[in-house]
Amino acid sequence: MAARRIYRGAWIEVSTEEVSLPNGRQVTLDIVRHPGAAAVVPFLSADEVLLIRQYRHAAGGTIYEVPAGKLDAGEDPAECAVRELEEETGYRAGRVEALGWIFTTPGFTDERIYLFAAYELEKTRQRLEDDELIELVPVPLDSALELIWSGELPDAKSSLALLHAARLLGKLA
Amino acid sequence: MAARRIYRGAWIEVSTEEVSLPNGRQVTLDIVRHPGAAAVVPFLSADEVLLIRQYRHAAGGTIYEVPAGKLDAGEDPAECAVRELEEETGYRAGRVEALGWIFTTPGFTDERIYLFAAYELEKTRQRLEDDELIELVPVPLDSALELIWSGELPDAKSSLALLHAARLLGKLA
Repeated sequence: MAARRIYRGAWIEVSTEEVSLPNGRQVTLDIVRHPGAAAVVPFLSADEVLLIRQYRHAAGGTIYEVPAGKLDAGEDPAECAVRELEEETGYRAGRVEALGWIFTTPGFTDERIYLFAAYELEKTRQRLEDDELIELVPVPLDSALELIWSGELPDAKSSLALLHAARLLGKLA
Repeated sequence: MAARRIYRGAWIEVSTEEVSLPNGRQVTLDIVRHPGAAAVVPFLSADEVLLIRQYRHAAGGTIYEVPAGKLDAGEDPAECAVRELEEETGYRAGRVEALGWIFTTPGFTDERIYLFAAYELEKTRQRLEDDELIELVPVPLDSALELIWSGELPDAKSSLALLHAARLLGKLA
C-alpha cells in the first residue's frame, strides 16, 4: 500500500492511499486518520443523565451531545472518558462502565469512539478549553431517548452511548 | 470567517477555518466538508432485513453495514437511498420511509447521513462500483439488533438506522 500524506493538522491527518482490495483490484482512497475518542453518559442518579449543549462549527450551531473528547497519545479510553467528563462538566466519576465502541463513518475515516456510562459522580470544577462552549443540561434518561427518536439529538456517538446505557438498564426491549 | 482550502478530493474537502465563536473568541479549526449521504434498512419481510458485509479500508477489514452512499449533487436523500439500495443489493424499493438524520462526527466534519427504511422490495440486479466488495446478509431484525448490542455491528449509521426502524415497529420500549 502506497500512501501520500496530504495534511497533518492538530489532530486529523489526511492521506491519499493506493489500496489493494481483497479481490486484487487497486483503488485510490482518501482517508482521514484520527486518534480515536471516548464519549460518556454521566448518570446523576439512576434515571437522570447529564447532557451538554455545545457549539460545533462543523454542525453550524449548538447541538446536544454527551461529554466526549479525543484520546491523548497512548491514553486508555476509560481514562479519557473520566478526564473529559471532569473537564467538560466538573464531575468526577467514581465508576465507569464500557458500552462498546463505534466507527463514526468508516467510508472515509478510521475514527473509533469508545462509549461509556459514568456513575457515582462527585462535583469538582469544569475546566473548558478556549474553543469549548458548553452548557450542562441534566435530563431524565427517558427524555434523552425521546430527543433521539424525535431527531433533536442527531449526534451519532451520543445517541448510541445513550441507547446502549438505556438497554443495560432494561429500558429497551 | 476566513477559510483556507487544504485539499479537494473526489468527495471530501479539507479546510482550515478561522472561526469566531459565539463568545467572541477566535479559533482555528480543521474541517472535512462532505456532501452528505443516505443509509437505508431494506426490509425483505416484516421481520427480516438485508445487511451487507463490505470491505472498508478505513476500518481495516470487512464490516456489517446497511446499504448507503453519498448524495450526488442536488440529489434528494430519499432518491439517493433508493439508488444506492438497488446498486449495492439489486433490490428496488417500492416505498421508503424517512427515519431522521445524524451527524456522524461533528467534531471535525459536517457530514450528515439521512436514514431510511425501505419496503416492497423487488429483485433487479446488483451494480457494484470497482471499489465495492459487498456480500448480502439477510437476517431477522432481532438478530441485527443483537449484533449492535454485542458490538459486532459497530458502524454508527447502520446501528442508528436499524434502531430507529425497530422503534417504529414497536420493537424497543
